[in-house]
Amino acid sequence: MTDSLSFDIDAVNTMLREQFPGTGNRCIDIGPGFGIAAYDVLPTDIRPGGFVSGPCQFSLVDCALWFLAFAALDRIEPMALTSELSIRFLRPAQGERIFCKATLEAVNRRSVVGTAHVWCEGRPDKITAAAQGTYAIPLPR
Amino acid sequence: MTDSLSFDIDAVNTMLREQFPGTGNRCIDIGPGFGIAAYDVLPTDIRPGGFVSGPCQFSLVDCALWFLAFAALDRIEPMALTSELSIRFLRPAQGERIFCKATLEAVNRRSVVGTAHVWCEGRPDKITAAAQGTYAIPLPR
Amino acid sequence: MTDSLSFDIDAVNTMLREQFPGTGNRCIDIGPGFGIAAYDVLPTDIRPGGFVSGPCQFSLVDCALWFLAFAALDRIEPMALTSELSIRFLRPAQGERIFCKATLEAVNRRSVVGTAHVWCEGRPDKITAAAQGTYAIPLPR
Amino acid sequence: MTDSLSFDIDAVNTMLREQFPGTGNRCIDIGPGFGIAAYDVLPTDIRPGGFVSGPCQFSLVDCALWFLAFAALDRIEPMALTSELSIRFLRPAQGERIFCKATLEAVNRRSVVGTAHVWCEGRPDKITAAAQGTYAIPLPR
Repeated sequence: MTDSLSFDIDAVNTMLREQFPGTGNRCIDIGPGFGIAAYDVLPTDIRPGGFVSGPCQFSLVDCALWFLAFAALDRIEPMALTSELSIRFLRPAQGERIFCKATLEAVNRRSVVGTAHVWCEGRPDKITAAAQGTYAIPLPR
Repeated sequence: MTDSLSFDIDAVNTMLREQFPGTGNRCIDIGPGFGIAAYDVLPTDIRPGGFVSGPCQFSLVDCALWFLAFAALDRIEPMALTSELSIRFLRPAQGERIFCKATLEAVNRRSVVGTAHVWCEGRPDKITAAAQGTYAIPLPR
Repeated sequence: MTDSLSFDIDAVNTMLREQFPGTGNRCIDIGPGFGIAAYDVLPTDIRPGGFVSGPCQFSLVDCALWFLAFAALDRIEPMALTSELSIRFLRPAQGERIFCKATLEAVNRRSVVGTAHVWCEGRPDKITAAAQGTYAIPLPR
Repeated sequence: MTDSLSFDIDAVNTMLREQFPGTGNRCIDIGPGFGIAAYDVLPTDIRPGGFVSGPCQFSLVDCALWFLAFAALDRIEPMALTSELSIRFLRPAQGERIFCKATLEAVNRRSVVGTAHVWCEGRPDKITAAAQGTYAIPLPR
Protein backbone atom coordinates (compact mmCIF):
# COMPACT_ATOMS: atom_id res chain seq x y z
CA MET A 1 0.00 0.00 0.00
CA THR A 2 1.41 3.35 -1.04
CA ASP A 3 1.78 6.28 1.36
CA SER A 4 -0.41 8.56 -0.70
CA LEU A 5 -2.74 8.46 -3.68
CA SER A 6 -2.13 9.84 -7.16
CA PHE A 7 -5.41 11.83 -7.03
CA ASP A 8 -7.21 13.89 -4.40
CA ILE A 9 -10.67 14.61 -2.94
CA ASP A 10 -11.40 17.33 -5.47
CA ALA A 11 -10.75 14.99 -8.37
CA VAL A 12 -13.24 12.48 -6.96
CA ASN A 13 -15.91 15.14 -6.46
CA THR A 14 -15.33 16.56 -9.93
CA MET A 15 -15.93 13.10 -11.42
CA LEU A 16 -19.12 12.76 -9.35
CA ARG A 17 -20.45 16.12 -10.55
CA GLU A 18 -19.71 15.27 -14.17
CA GLN A 19 -20.66 11.60 -14.37
CA PHE A 20 -23.19 11.08 -11.55
CA PRO A 21 -24.77 14.51 -10.98
CA GLY A 22 -27.85 12.95 -9.37
CA THR A 23 -25.99 11.65 -6.34
CA GLY A 24 -26.09 13.82 -3.25
CA ASN A 25 -23.12 11.96 -1.78
CA ARG A 26 -19.67 13.51 -1.81
CA CYS A 27 -16.12 12.60 -0.84
CA ILE A 28 -14.75 14.30 2.26
CA ASP A 29 -11.58 12.23 2.68
CA ILE A 30 -9.69 9.50 0.88
CA GLY A 31 -6.31 7.89 1.37
CA PRO A 32 -4.51 4.55 1.18
CA GLY A 33 -6.95 1.95 2.51
CA PHE A 34 -9.98 4.15 3.19
CA GLY A 35 -12.62 6.51 1.84
CA ILE A 36 -15.13 8.74 3.65
CA ALA A 37 -18.43 9.93 2.17
CA ALA A 38 -20.91 12.50 3.50
CA TYR A 39 -24.53 13.32 2.72
CA ASP A 40 -26.88 16.16 3.69
CA VAL A 41 -30.18 14.54 4.61
CA LEU A 42 -33.26 15.79 2.71
CA PRO A 43 -36.86 15.79 3.94
CA THR A 44 -37.59 13.13 1.30
CA ASP A 45 -35.13 10.77 3.05
CA ILE A 46 -37.14 10.63 6.27
CA ARG A 47 -39.12 7.42 6.80
CA PRO A 48 -41.94 6.73 9.29
CA GLY A 49 -40.75 7.38 12.84
CA GLY A 50 -38.73 10.41 11.76
CA PHE A 51 -35.57 8.43 10.93
CA VAL A 52 -33.13 8.66 8.03
CA SER A 53 -34.24 5.84 5.72
CA GLY A 54 -32.25 2.64 5.30
CA PRO A 55 -31.81 3.09 1.52
CA CYS A 56 -30.40 6.57 2.14
CA GLN A 57 -27.75 5.04 4.41
CA PHE A 58 -27.14 2.19 1.95
CA SER A 59 -26.52 4.73 -0.80
CA LEU A 60 -23.85 6.40 1.32
CA VAL A 61 -22.21 3.06 2.13
CA ASP A 62 -22.16 2.14 -1.54
CA CYS A 63 -20.52 5.46 -2.35
CA ALA A 64 -17.89 5.18 0.39
CA LEU A 65 -16.99 1.70 -0.88
CA TRP A 66 -16.68 3.13 -4.40
CA PHE A 67 -14.22 5.70 -3.07
CA LEU A 68 -12.41 2.87 -1.29
CA ALA A 69 -12.16 1.03 -4.62
CA PHE A 70 -10.55 4.14 -6.15
CA ALA A 71 -8.13 4.23 -3.22
CA ALA A 72 -7.30 0.53 -3.55
CA LEU A 73 -6.67 0.85 -7.29
CA ASP A 74 -4.98 4.25 -6.91
CA ARG A 75 -7.08 5.58 -9.76
CA ILE A 76 -10.57 7.01 -10.16
CA GLU A 77 -12.45 4.15 -11.80
CA PRO A 78 -16.09 5.17 -12.37
CA MET A 79 -16.90 1.78 -13.92
CA ALA A 80 -16.06 -0.16 -10.77
CA LEU A 81 -19.43 -1.74 -9.94
CA THR A 82 -20.88 -3.11 -6.72
CA SER A 83 -21.15 -6.86 -7.02
CA GLU A 84 -22.62 -7.51 -3.57
CA LEU A 85 -23.25 -5.60 -0.38
CA SER A 86 -24.73 -6.61 2.97
CA ILE A 87 -25.82 -4.08 5.56
CA ARG A 88 -27.05 -4.23 9.16
CA PHE A 89 -29.02 -1.35 10.67
CA LEU A 90 -27.97 -0.99 14.29
CA ARG A 91 -29.95 1.92 15.71
CA PRO A 92 -32.23 4.72 14.44
CA ALA A 93 -30.41 7.45 12.49
CA GLN A 94 -31.42 11.04 13.14
CA GLY A 95 -29.71 14.21 12.06
CA GLU A 96 -29.07 16.56 9.20
CA ARG A 97 -25.84 15.01 7.94
CA ILE A 98 -24.61 11.43 7.81
CA PHE A 99 -21.14 10.04 7.23
CA CYS A 100 -19.69 6.71 6.13
CA LYS A 101 -16.13 5.46 6.35
CA ALA A 102 -15.13 2.42 4.29
CA THR A 103 -11.97 0.51 5.16
CA LEU A 104 -10.06 -1.91 2.93
CA GLU A 105 -10.21 -5.64 3.69
CA ALA A 106 -8.55 -6.90 0.50
CA VAL A 107 -7.91 -6.11 -3.13
CA ASN A 108 -6.97 -8.44 -5.98
CA ARG A 109 -7.17 -8.22 -9.76
CA ARG A 110 -10.89 -8.96 -9.75
CA SER A 111 -12.34 -7.11 -6.80
CA VAL A 112 -12.06 -4.82 -3.79
CA VAL A 113 -13.64 -5.82 -0.47
CA GLY A 114 -14.31 -3.37 2.35
CA THR A 115 -16.07 -2.86 5.67
CA ALA A 116 -18.09 0.32 6.25
CA HIS A 117 -19.66 2.21 9.14
CA VAL A 118 -22.33 4.94 9.07
CA TRP A 119 -22.90 7.58 11.73
CA CYS A 120 -24.78 10.86 12.22
CA GLU A 121 -23.06 14.20 12.63
CA GLY A 122 -21.77 14.72 16.14
CA ARG A 123 -22.13 11.09 17.20
CA PRO A 124 -19.23 9.14 15.62
CA ASP A 125 -19.36 6.63 18.47
CA LYS A 126 -22.99 5.71 17.72
CA ILE A 127 -22.73 3.66 14.55
CA THR A 128 -26.14 3.49 12.84
CA ALA A 129 -25.24 0.91 10.20
CA ALA A 130 -22.41 -1.57 9.57
CA ALA A 131 -21.80 -3.11 6.17
CA GLN A 132 -19.44 -5.20 4.07
CA GLY A 133 -19.30 -5.40 0.33
CA THR A 134 -17.44 -6.12 -2.87
CA TYR A 135 -16.71 -3.92 -5.87
CA ALA A 136 -15.87 -5.63 -9.15
CA ILE A 137 -12.95 -4.16 -11.06
CA PRO A 138 -13.48 -3.91 -14.84
CA LEU A 139 -11.58 -6.73 -16.54
CA PRO A 140 -9.08 -5.80 -19.24
CA ARG A 141 -10.64 -6.46 -22.64
CA MET B 1 -51.12 -18.50 5.66
CA THR B 2 -54.51 -16.96 4.95
CA ASP B 3 -56.04 -16.92 1.50
CA SER B 4 -56.30 -13.16 1.37
CA LEU B 5 -55.14 -10.11 3.30
CA SER B 6 -57.23 -7.80 5.47
CA PHE B 7 -55.99 -4.73 3.53
CA ASP B 8 -55.35 -3.93 -0.13
CA ILE B 9 -52.85 -2.20 -2.47
CA ASP B 10 -54.58 1.16 -2.12
CA ALA B 11 -54.24 1.08 1.66
CA VAL B 12 -50.49 0.49 1.35
CA ASN B 13 -50.04 3.33 -1.11
CA THR B 14 -52.15 5.67 1.01
CA MET B 15 -49.87 4.96 3.99
CA LEU B 16 -46.81 5.62 1.79
CA ARG B 17 -48.16 8.97 0.58
CA GLU B 18 -49.00 10.05 4.13
CA GLN B 19 -46.06 8.74 6.11
CA PHE B 20 -43.21 8.46 3.58
CA PRO B 21 -44.05 11.00 0.87
CA GLY B 22 -40.41 11.18 -0.24
CA THR B 23 -40.27 7.63 -1.53
CA GLY B 24 -40.88 7.17 -5.22
CA ASN B 25 -41.62 3.48 -4.70
CA ARG B 26 -45.20 2.19 -4.78
CA CYS B 27 -47.05 -1.05 -4.26
CA ILE B 28 -48.45 -2.71 -7.37
CA ASP B 29 -49.45 -6.05 -5.86
CA ILE B 30 -49.55 -7.74 -2.47
CA GLY B 31 -50.97 -11.01 -1.21
CA PRO B 32 -50.28 -13.86 1.18
CA GLY B 33 -46.53 -14.50 1.02
CA PHE B 34 -45.48 -11.79 -1.42
CA GLY B 35 -45.29 -8.09 -2.25
CA ILE B 36 -44.39 -6.30 -5.48
CA ALA B 37 -42.99 -2.77 -5.70
CA ALA B 38 -42.45 -0.55 -8.74
CA TYR B 39 -40.39 2.59 -9.38
CA ASP B 40 -40.20 5.06 -12.25
CA VAL B 41 -36.51 5.73 -12.83
CA LEU B 42 -35.40 9.38 -12.69
CA PRO B 43 -32.43 10.93 -14.49
CA THR B 44 -30.83 11.39 -11.05
CA ASP B 45 -30.80 7.60 -10.58
CA ILE B 46 -28.49 6.99 -13.54
CA ARG B 47 -24.89 6.17 -12.64
CA PRO B 48 -21.80 6.18 -14.88
CA GLY B 49 -22.29 3.82 -17.81
CA GLY B 50 -25.95 4.81 -18.19
CA PHE B 51 -27.25 2.20 -15.72
CA VAL B 52 -29.86 2.43 -12.97
CA SER B 53 -27.81 2.85 -9.80
CA GLY B 54 -27.38 0.10 -7.24
CA PRO B 55 -28.85 2.18 -4.39
CA CYS B 56 -31.94 2.87 -6.49
CA GLN B 57 -32.46 -0.89 -6.86
CA PHE B 58 -31.68 -1.48 -3.18
CA SER B 59 -34.35 1.07 -2.24
CA LEU B 60 -36.92 -0.85 -4.28
CA VAL B 61 -35.88 -4.18 -2.70
CA ASP B 62 -36.16 -2.66 0.76
CA CYS B 63 -39.64 -1.40 -0.05
CA ALA B 64 -40.84 -4.73 -1.51
CA LEU B 65 -39.61 -6.49 1.64
CA TRP B 66 -41.52 -3.93 3.72
CA PHE B 67 -44.68 -4.79 1.78
CA LEU B 68 -43.88 -8.47 2.33
CA ALA B 69 -43.68 -7.79 6.08
CA PHE B 70 -47.15 -6.23 5.93
CA ALA B 71 -48.39 -9.31 4.09
CA ALA B 72 -46.76 -11.70 6.57
CA LEU B 73 -48.27 -9.83 9.54
CA ASP B 74 -51.57 -9.22 7.73
CA ARG B 75 -51.46 -5.60 8.81
CA ILE B 76 -49.81 -2.41 7.55
CA GLU B 77 -46.99 -1.91 10.04
CA PRO B 78 -45.03 1.24 9.11
CA MET B 79 -42.65 0.73 12.04
CA ALA B 80 -41.37 -2.61 10.79
CA LEU B 81 -37.67 -1.83 10.25
CA THR B 82 -35.00 -3.47 8.11
CA SER B 83 -32.52 -5.20 10.37
CA GLU B 84 -30.25 -6.57 7.64
CA LEU B 85 -30.26 -6.89 3.89
CA SER B 86 -27.78 -8.38 1.43
CA ILE B 87 -27.95 -7.75 -2.30
CA ARG B 88 -26.15 -9.06 -5.37
CA PHE B 89 -26.11 -7.10 -8.62
CA LEU B 90 -26.33 -9.57 -11.48
CA ARG B 91 -26.33 -7.53 -14.69
CA PRO B 92 -26.65 -3.88 -15.72
CA ALA B 93 -30.16 -2.42 -15.27
CA GLN B 94 -31.49 -0.16 -18.00
CA GLY B 95 -34.99 1.13 -18.52
CA GLU B 96 -37.58 3.61 -17.38
CA ARG B 97 -39.30 1.44 -14.80
CA ILE B 98 -38.04 -1.23 -12.43
CA PHE B 99 -39.90 -3.84 -10.41
CA CYS B 100 -39.15 -5.95 -7.38
CA LYS B 101 -40.99 -8.99 -6.05
CA ALA B 102 -40.30 -10.13 -2.49
CA THR B 103 -41.29 -13.65 -1.42
CA LEU B 104 -41.70 -14.92 2.13
CA GLU B 105 -39.10 -17.30 3.57
CA ALA B 106 -40.26 -17.26 7.19
CA VAL B 107 -42.05 -15.18 9.81
CA ASN B 108 -41.95 -15.48 13.58
CA ARG B 109 -42.79 -13.12 16.44
CA ARG B 110 -39.52 -11.19 16.00
CA SER B 111 -38.94 -10.94 12.29
CA VAL B 112 -39.88 -11.52 8.68
CA VAL B 113 -37.34 -12.94 6.22
CA GLY B 114 -37.74 -12.75 2.45
CA THR B 115 -36.00 -13.21 -0.88
CA ALA B 116 -36.33 -10.52 -3.56
CA HIS B 117 -35.68 -10.12 -7.27
CA VAL B 118 -35.40 -6.92 -9.33
CA TRP B 119 -36.04 -6.60 -13.06
CA CYS B 120 -36.57 -3.88 -15.67
CA GLU B 121 -39.85 -3.36 -17.48
CA GLY B 122 -40.36 -5.82 -20.31
CA ARG B 123 -37.56 -8.18 -19.19
CA PRO B 124 -38.88 -10.19 -16.20
CA ASP B 125 -36.59 -13.07 -17.13
CA LYS B 126 -33.46 -10.90 -16.85
CA ILE B 127 -33.09 -10.42 -13.10
CA THR B 128 -30.79 -7.45 -12.40
CA ALA B 129 -30.45 -7.96 -8.63
CA ALA B 130 -31.19 -10.73 -6.13
CA ALA B 131 -31.42 -10.06 -2.41
CA GLN B 132 -32.36 -11.52 0.95
CA GLY B 133 -33.18 -9.64 4.09
CA THR B 134 -34.85 -9.42 7.46
CA TYR B 135 -37.43 -6.98 8.80
CA ALA B 136 -37.74 -6.63 12.56
CA ILE B 137 -41.28 -6.56 13.93
CA PRO B 138 -41.84 -4.00 16.70
CA LEU B 139 -41.87 -5.79 20.06
CA PRO B 140 -44.91 -5.36 22.29
CA ARG B 141 -44.11 -2.83 25.03
CA MET C 1 -29.64 -23.05 -20.61
CA THR C 2 -29.26 -26.56 -22.01
CA ASP C 3 -31.82 -29.29 -21.43
CA SER C 4 -29.35 -31.61 -19.75
CA LEU C 5 -25.81 -31.59 -18.39
CA SER C 6 -22.76 -33.27 -19.87
CA PHE C 7 -22.03 -35.06 -16.55
CA ASP C 8 -24.14 -36.81 -13.91
CA ILE C 9 -24.58 -37.19 -10.13
CA ASP C 10 -22.09 -40.06 -9.94
CA ALA C 11 -19.36 -37.98 -11.58
CA VAL C 12 -19.86 -35.25 -8.99
CA ASN C 13 -19.70 -37.68 -6.09
CA THR C 14 -16.63 -39.41 -7.54
CA MET C 15 -14.86 -36.05 -7.65
CA LEU C 16 -15.90 -35.36 -4.03
CA ARG C 17 -14.55 -38.73 -2.84
CA GLU C 18 -11.26 -38.22 -4.66
CA GLN C 19 -10.59 -34.52 -4.10
CA PHE C 20 -12.51 -33.63 -0.92
CA PRO C 21 -12.80 -36.92 1.01
CA GLY C 22 -13.33 -35.06 4.29
CA THR C 23 -16.69 -33.63 3.30
CA GLY C 24 -19.73 -35.56 4.44
CA ASN C 25 -21.89 -33.76 1.88
CA ARG C 26 -22.96 -35.52 -1.31
CA CYS C 27 -24.86 -34.72 -4.48
CA ILE C 28 -28.32 -36.25 -4.78
CA ASP C 29 -29.53 -34.35 -7.85
CA ILE C 30 -28.20 -31.88 -10.37
CA GLY C 31 -29.55 -30.42 -13.58
CA PRO C 32 -29.72 -27.22 -15.62
CA GLY C 33 -30.13 -24.39 -13.11
CA PHE C 34 -30.02 -26.34 -9.85
CA GLY C 35 -28.10 -28.66 -7.54
CA ILE C 36 -29.23 -30.60 -4.45
CA ALA C 37 -26.91 -31.70 -1.64
CA ALA C 38 -27.62 -34.01 1.31
CA TYR C 39 -25.86 -34.69 4.61
CA ASP C 40 -26.28 -37.30 7.35
CA VAL C 41 -26.09 -35.41 10.63
CA LEU C 42 -23.46 -36.62 13.12
CA PRO C 43 -23.60 -36.33 16.92
CA THR C 44 -20.72 -33.84 16.65
CA ASP C 45 -22.95 -31.50 14.61
CA ILE C 46 -25.44 -31.00 17.45
CA ARG C 47 -25.19 -27.65 19.24
CA PRO C 48 -26.69 -26.62 22.60
CA GLY C 49 -30.46 -27.06 22.53
CA GLY C 50 -30.21 -30.27 20.51
CA PHE C 51 -30.23 -28.53 17.13
CA VAL C 52 -28.18 -29.12 13.98
CA SER C 53 -25.47 -26.44 14.16
CA GLY C 54 -25.46 -23.40 11.90
CA PRO C 55 -22.02 -24.18 10.43
CA CYS C 56 -23.21 -27.68 9.52
CA GLN C 57 -26.07 -26.12 7.53
CA PHE C 58 -23.73 -23.51 6.02
CA SER C 59 -21.42 -26.28 4.84
CA LEU C 60 -24.33 -27.95 3.03
CA VAL C 61 -25.38 -24.65 1.43
CA ASP C 62 -21.84 -24.01 0.27
CA CYS C 63 -21.72 -27.48 -1.28
CA ALA C 64 -25.10 -27.14 -3.02
CA LEU C 65 -23.94 -23.82 -4.51
CA TRP C 66 -20.75 -25.54 -5.69
CA PHE C 67 -22.89 -28.14 -7.48
CA LEU C 68 -24.95 -25.29 -8.90
CA ALA C 69 -21.75 -23.74 -10.25
CA PHE C 70 -20.92 -27.04 -11.99
CA ALA C 71 -24.44 -27.04 -13.45
CA ALA C 72 -24.17 -23.44 -14.62
CA LEU C 73 -20.78 -24.08 -16.26
CA ASP C 74 -21.83 -27.53 -17.51
CA ARG C 75 -18.56 -28.94 -16.21
CA ILE C 76 -17.26 -30.22 -12.89
CA GLU C 77 -14.99 -27.38 -11.80
CA PRO C 78 -13.45 -28.21 -8.39
CA MET C 79 -11.54 -24.92 -8.34
CA ALA C 80 -14.69 -22.79 -8.37
CA LEU C 81 -14.39 -20.96 -5.04
CA THR C 82 -16.96 -19.27 -2.84
CA SER C 83 -16.40 -15.53 -2.96
CA GLU C 84 -19.22 -14.53 -0.62
CA LEU C 85 -22.19 -16.16 1.04
CA SER C 86 -24.89 -14.82 3.34
CA ILE C 87 -27.20 -17.07 5.32
CA ARG C 88 -30.28 -16.59 7.51
CA PHE C 89 -31.32 -19.20 10.05
CA LEU C 90 -35.11 -19.36 10.10
CA ARG C 91 -36.06 -22.03 12.64
CA PRO C 92 -34.35 -24.77 14.65
CA ALA C 93 -33.16 -27.73 12.57
CA GLN C 94 -33.68 -31.19 14.00
CA GLY C 95 -33.35 -34.56 12.30
CA GLU C 96 -30.92 -37.15 11.03
CA ARG C 97 -30.57 -35.90 7.50
CA ILE C 98 -30.60 -32.41 5.98
CA PHE C 99 -30.96 -31.26 2.40
CA CYS C 100 -30.16 -28.12 0.46
CA LYS C 101 -31.32 -27.05 -2.98
CA ALA C 102 -29.46 -24.25 -4.75
CA THR C 103 -31.11 -22.46 -7.67
CA LEU C 104 -29.41 -20.33 -10.31
CA GLU C 105 -29.86 -16.55 -10.25
CA ALA C 106 -27.23 -15.64 -12.84
CA VAL C 107 -23.98 -16.76 -14.42
CA ASN C 108 -21.42 -14.72 -16.31
CA ARG C 109 -17.75 -15.21 -17.19
CA ARG C 110 -16.63 -14.28 -13.68
CA SER C 111 -19.15 -15.80 -11.31
CA VAL C 112 -22.23 -17.85 -10.54
CA VAL C 113 -24.89 -16.51 -8.17
CA GLY C 114 -27.53 -18.68 -6.54
CA THR C 115 -30.21 -18.84 -3.86
CA ALA C 116 -30.35 -21.84 -1.52
CA HIS C 117 -32.79 -23.40 0.95
CA VAL C 118 -32.10 -25.97 3.69
CA TRP C 119 -34.64 -28.36 5.19
CA CYS C 120 -34.72 -31.48 7.36
CA GLU C 121 -35.82 -34.87 6.11
CA GLY C 122 -39.58 -35.20 5.92
CA ARG C 123 -40.25 -31.47 6.29
CA PRO C 124 -39.49 -29.82 2.92
CA ASP C 125 -42.04 -27.11 3.66
CA LYS C 126 -40.22 -26.04 6.85
CA ILE C 127 -37.14 -24.25 5.54
CA THR C 128 -34.51 -24.01 8.29
CA ALA C 129 -32.09 -21.70 6.46
CA ALA C 130 -32.17 -19.45 3.39
CA ALA C 131 -29.01 -18.21 1.72
CA GLN C 132 -27.58 -16.43 -1.29
CA GLY C 133 -24.04 -16.52 -2.51
CA THR C 134 -21.48 -16.17 -5.26
CA TYR C 135 -18.94 -18.64 -6.63
CA ALA C 136 -15.96 -17.25 -8.51
CA ILE C 137 -15.07 -19.03 -11.72
CA PRO C 138 -11.33 -19.53 -12.26
CA LEU C 139 -10.09 -16.95 -14.78
CA PRO C 140 -8.30 -18.19 -17.88
CA ARG C 141 -4.53 -17.75 -17.42
CA MET D 1 -19.12 -1.26 28.35
CA THR D 2 -17.56 -2.66 31.50
CA ASP D 3 -13.81 -2.88 32.01
CA SER D 4 -13.84 -6.61 32.51
CA LEU D 5 -16.18 -9.56 32.19
CA SER D 6 -17.77 -11.57 34.99
CA PHE D 7 -16.44 -14.86 33.49
CA ASP D 8 -13.18 -15.97 31.87
CA ILE D 9 -11.77 -18.01 28.96
CA ASP D 10 -11.80 -21.23 30.97
CA ALA D 11 -15.50 -20.87 31.74
CA VAL D 12 -16.25 -20.51 28.02
CA ASN D 13 -14.20 -23.57 27.10
CA THR D 14 -15.75 -25.61 29.90
CA MET D 15 -19.22 -24.81 28.53
CA LEU D 16 -18.05 -25.80 25.02
CA ARG D 17 -16.70 -29.16 26.23
CA GLU D 18 -19.89 -29.92 28.12
CA GLN D 19 -22.56 -28.61 25.77
CA PHE D 20 -20.97 -28.70 22.30
CA PRO D 21 -18.30 -31.39 22.52
CA GLY D 22 -18.30 -31.88 18.75
CA THR D 23 -16.88 -28.43 17.98
CA GLY D 24 -13.16 -28.23 17.46
CA ASN D 25 -13.23 -24.47 18.03
CA ARG D 26 -12.04 -23.00 21.31
CA CYS D 27 -11.81 -19.61 22.99
CA ILE D 28 -8.35 -18.14 23.31
CA ASP D 29 -9.31 -14.64 24.44
CA ILE D 30 -12.41 -12.69 25.38
CA GLY D 31 -13.03 -9.26 26.85
CA PRO D 32 -15.35 -6.28 26.65
CA GLY D 33 -16.25 -5.85 22.98
CA PHE D 34 -14.37 -8.81 21.48
CA GLY D 35 -13.86 -12.56 21.35
CA ILE D 36 -11.12 -14.65 19.70
CA ALA D 37 -11.54 -18.26 18.58
CA ALA D 38 -8.92 -20.74 17.35
CA TYR D 39 -9.07 -24.04 15.47
CA ASP D 40 -6.53 -26.73 14.63
CA VAL D 41 -7.08 -27.63 11.00
CA LEU D 42 -7.74 -31.33 10.27
CA PRO D 43 -6.98 -33.19 7.03
CA THR D 44 -10.77 -33.47 6.52
CA ASP D 45 -10.99 -29.66 6.35
CA ILE D 46 -8.82 -29.41 3.24
CA ARG D 47 -10.68 -28.73 0.01
CA PRO D 48 -9.45 -29.08 -3.60
CA GLY D 49 -6.36 -26.93 -4.14
CA GLY D 50 -5.00 -27.75 -0.68
CA PHE D 51 -6.83 -24.89 1.08
CA VAL D 52 -8.70 -24.75 4.36
CA SER D 53 -12.36 -25.05 3.34
CA GLY D 54 -14.77 -22.14 3.45
CA PRO D 55 -17.20 -23.87 5.83
CA CYS D 56 -14.33 -24.55 8.23
CA GLN D 57 -13.60 -20.81 8.33
CA PHE D 58 -17.32 -19.99 8.61
CA SER D 59 -17.57 -22.30 11.62
CA LEU D 60 -14.77 -20.40 13.32
CA VAL D 61 -16.38 -17.04 12.55
CA ASP D 62 -19.70 -18.25 13.91
CA CYS D 63 -17.97 -19.37 17.10
CA ALA D 64 -16.04 -16.11 17.56
CA LEU D 65 -19.31 -14.17 17.17
CA TRP D 66 -20.89 -16.45 19.78
CA PHE D 67 -18.07 -15.55 22.17
CA LEU D 68 -18.63 -11.90 21.28
CA ALA D 69 -22.31 -12.30 22.21
CA PHE D 70 -21.24 -13.67 25.61
CA ALA D 71 -18.94 -10.67 26.02
CA ALA D 72 -21.66 -8.20 25.00
CA LEU D 73 -24.16 -9.75 27.42
CA ASP D 74 -21.50 -10.31 30.11
CA ARG D 75 -22.77 -13.84 30.60
CA ILE D 76 -22.21 -17.19 28.91
CA GLU D 77 -25.45 -17.67 26.97
CA PRO D 78 -25.30 -20.98 25.07
CA MET D 79 -28.77 -20.40 23.61
CA ALA D 80 -27.76 -17.25 21.77
CA LEU D 81 -28.36 -18.27 18.14
CA THR D 82 -27.00 -16.96 14.86
CA SER D 83 -29.78 -15.20 13.02
CA GLU D 84 -27.76 -14.19 9.96
CA LEU D 85 -24.15 -14.14 8.85
CA SER D 86 -22.45 -13.00 5.67
CA ILE D 87 -18.88 -13.90 4.81
CA ARG D 88 -16.40 -12.93 2.11
CA PHE D 89 -13.42 -15.14 1.29
CA LEU D 90 -10.48 -12.89 0.49
CA ARG D 91 -7.54 -15.18 -0.26
CA PRO D 92 -6.67 -18.89 0.03
CA ALA D 93 -6.16 -20.09 3.61
CA GLN D 94 -3.28 -22.46 4.27
CA GLY D 95 -1.81 -23.58 7.56
CA GLU D 96 -2.31 -25.82 10.56
CA ARG D 97 -4.15 -23.36 12.78
CA ILE D 98 -6.63 -20.59 12.04
CA PHE D 99 -7.86 -17.74 14.20
CA CYS D 100 -10.86 -15.43 14.19
CA LYS D 101 -11.42 -12.21 16.08
CA ALA D 102 -14.96 -10.84 16.37
CA THR D 103 -15.49 -7.21 17.34
CA LEU D 104 -18.68 -5.62 18.65
CA GLU D 105 -20.68 -3.30 16.40
CA ALA D 106 -23.80 -3.00 18.56
CA VAL D 107 -25.91 -4.75 21.17
CA ASN D 108 -29.53 -4.18 22.13
CA ARG D 109 -32.14 -6.26 23.93
CA ARG D 110 -32.79 -8.38 20.84
CA SER D 111 -29.44 -8.97 19.22
CA VAL D 112 -25.67 -8.61 19.06
CA VAL D 113 -23.97 -7.54 15.82
CA GLY D 114 -20.27 -7.99 15.14
CA THR D 115 -17.57 -7.89 12.48
CA ALA D 116 -15.07 -10.76 12.23
CA HIS D 117 -11.74 -11.47 10.58
CA VAL D 118 -10.03 -14.83 9.98
CA TRP D 119 -6.31 -15.43 9.54
CA CYS D 120 -3.81 -18.29 9.49
CA GLU D 121 -1.17 -18.77 12.15
CA GLY D 122 1.81 -16.51 11.64
CA ARG D 123 0.09 -14.23 9.12
CA PRO D 124 -2.27 -11.94 11.07
CA ASP D 125 -1.90 -9.26 8.39
CA LYS D 126 -3.21 -11.57 5.67
CA ILE D 127 -6.92 -11.78 6.41
CA THR D 128 -8.42 -14.82 4.65
CA ALA D 129 -12.08 -14.04 5.37
CA ALA D 130 -14.10 -11.04 6.57
CA ALA D 131 -17.61 -11.41 7.92
CA GLN D 132 -20.47 -9.64 9.68
CA GLY D 133 -23.34 -11.22 11.49
CA THR D 134 -26.09 -11.09 14.08
CA TYR D 135 -26.77 -13.27 17.11
CA ALA D 136 -30.31 -13.31 18.50
CA ILE D 137 -30.56 -13.06 22.26
CA PRO D 138 -33.18 -15.38 23.82
CA LEU D 139 -36.28 -13.34 24.68
CA PRO D 140 -37.52 -13.44 28.26
CA ARG D 141 -40.49 -15.80 28.48
